[in-house]
Amino acid sequence: MMIDAISAMRRANEISKLGLGKSAPNPIVGAVIIGDDGQIIGEGFHHSQGGGKHAEVVALDSAGQKSIGATLFVTLEPCNHMGKTPPCSEAIIAAGIKKVIFAVSDPNPIAQGGVKKLIDAGIIVEQGLLQDEVSFTNRAWLGKINNSRPYITIKIAASLDGKVAALDGSSKWITSEISRSDVAILRSQCDAIVTGTGTVLADNPSLTVRNVERENFEFRPVRVILGKREIPIDSKILDKSAETIQINDSDLGALIELAKERSWNQVLIEAGPTLNSAFLKAGLFDEVFLYQAPTLLGSGLDFAGNLGIESLNQRLDLELIAADLLGSKDKNLRLHLLAVSR
Amino acid sequence: MMIDAISAMRRANEISKLGLGKSAPNPIVGAVIIGDDGQIIGEGFHHSQGGGKHAEVVALDSAGQKSIGATLFVTLEPCNHMGKTPPCSEAIIAAGIKKVIFAVSDPNPIAQGGVKKLIDAGIIVEQGLLQDEVSFTNRAWLGKINNSRPYITIKIAASLDGKVAALDGSSKWITSEISRSDVAILRSQCDAIVTGTGTVLADNPSLTVRNVERENFEFRPVRVILGKREIPIDSKILDKSAETIQINDSDLGALIELAKERSWNQVLIEAGPTLNSAFLKAGLFDEVFLYQAPTLLGSGLDFAGNLGIESLNQRLDLELIAADLLGSKDKNLRLHLLAVSR
Repeated sequence: MMIDAISAMRRANEISKLGLGKSAPNPIVGAVIIGDDGQIIGEGFHHSQGGGKHAEVVALDSAGQKSIGATLFVTLEPCNHMGKTPPCSEAIIAAGIKKVIFAVSDPNPIAQGGVKKLIDAGIIVEQGLLQDEVSFTNRAWLGKINNSRPYITIKIAASLDGKVAALDGSSKWITSEISRSDVAILRSQCDAIVTGTGTVLADNPSLTVRNVERENFEFRPVRVILGKREIPIDSKILDKSAETIQINDSDLGALIELAKERSWNQVLIEAGPTLNSAFLKAGLFDEVFLYQAPTLLGSGLDFAGNLGIESLNQRLDLELIAADLLGSKDKNLRLHLLAVSR
Repeated sequence: MMIDAISAMRRANEISKLGLGKSAPNPIVGAVIIGDDGQIIGEGFHHSQGGGKHAEVVALDSAGQKSIGATLFVTLEPCNHMGKTPPCSEAIIAAGIKKVIFAVSDPNPIAQGGVKKLIDAGIIVEQGLLQDEVSFTNRAWLGKINNSRPYITIKIAASLDGKVAALDGSSKWITSEISRSDVAILRSQCDAIVTGTGTVLADNPSLTVRNVERENFEFRPVRVILGKREIPIDSKILDKSAETIQINDSDLGALIELAKERSWNQVLIEAGPTLNSAFLKAGLFDEVFLYQAPTLLGSGLDFAGNLGIESLNQRLDLELIAADLLGSKDKNLRLHLLAVSR
């Protein structure tokens, strides 16, 4: 099948997502090579396992000799940097690629210079194709570079009237099985999952990635517990299924420090009202996934906690970018909301 | 343009909606007549203004002589009943219609018998085409007949965390202009709009239908106030733009009695937490439209009030049938939820 430039870049963007949760400290990247006949002759995405080859190199390897005279579509500007692996620019030149089309410029000064090197070698270079779409897919890493902190996703599962627990504290399960499967995918795409001691004590969650197609990868997001309260030694979050770190503090700064130390791209907050409100009030978040079950509780525990808002004009506005119905019979709703810069 | 049977019935269903809020005590009905050549030669819908001709008769009148040998598509079984207007069955026979296709049988015993009369006159009759779709469109009137009370729609406009007002009571406006325009359409499709004295005192709403294409109809939903508190004589809801009735009682039974007396098909509840919870707790509702603004208040007034729910297993489940994004820039979300029979 012949493939046009937009479809080729969209394919590169799609496969780049396979690297989510497996690429830190690097960005996710997807690459597709199209031969003279308009067919896909090679593709690849970046992950940090087994040497951590860059997407371009994986794609060039899979195309082999056919790369000579071919066009490379790549979501991010090829690097010109000797890191753990040699510069992609050199590999592209060596492979005989004729034209390189990339979507987003690399904001990382250390990796820049790839374009100049390719042009100097006589390769045609175009940039900007599907830039917005690709930037959105890569928003976690781009956000990390821009804000000098990990991209922070808050996940909330609540009733339609915003409750995460009934009056007696019962909270399992407000949302449906399909919402929880969706959350498992979200977890698998993050580098760490953060909760509070309160949630550990109330719900005893394991916060692991279950039933997600892992493509034989051994990546498991680190579990982080914030708070000073003691938790039982047999709490599920302390099991051996993934690493767990307890920060003996409820200060959000300590989490940010840890994230920087570990070079995480994206952390997922799955906590109760106290931590939710702390992150929301501090503006320390980039997006919210709100899973709503079509049910009402009337009274109970509010998901947002106290945001210090007295009057309507102090409200915390978010940008709603998608509302998806999950499931067929027991439908749940997943809202995707972005932080609004204030 | 030739039109197939499904498209013809779908058109009849669409135009039937023009009668919403204007047909009580009758159902909404749409009719489309297709000539031998497969073209639409006549159509009509029922409303109760100016003699209140039935949809079939309006369609037959518009088709005139072309009705001879034509096919009539009608959403509801043609009546065989001498009410304010003569039976439709007789008009159909007199017009020379060859075939009648209707979607939903008339559950009203007084109007039944139309099919037998048509068949006796040699007309081919088919039933059930798009039955589910048409029943859904006509759910208010069908629900009224089944439950011997008006169809009750609860409208709520809230923040994502279920608040209708901030801590200081400020509540205007949580949702956007486009949500409020959508609510105006909803109001225009109901026979009465119900609120409580608390809402009148707090928000001073006018609860009128503004900026809705009224097609020159002079229908205005009656405004009903429930509750014993005194309201200022200059409250907007007491203006002359529509009839207003104050029921000096907070008993829901009094509203139902009034609705029966007035033969309303559908009432819209636009009230505060106290009345919302009264209707929700009593199971006295058929559907909920929840307008959500992508904003958080944290603390404030909950839309559902106290539902007497202590534990998660007592939760009030609803059936979520649609989630629509309204607007382009300041998006709001409209959830359509149906009551679940318990």
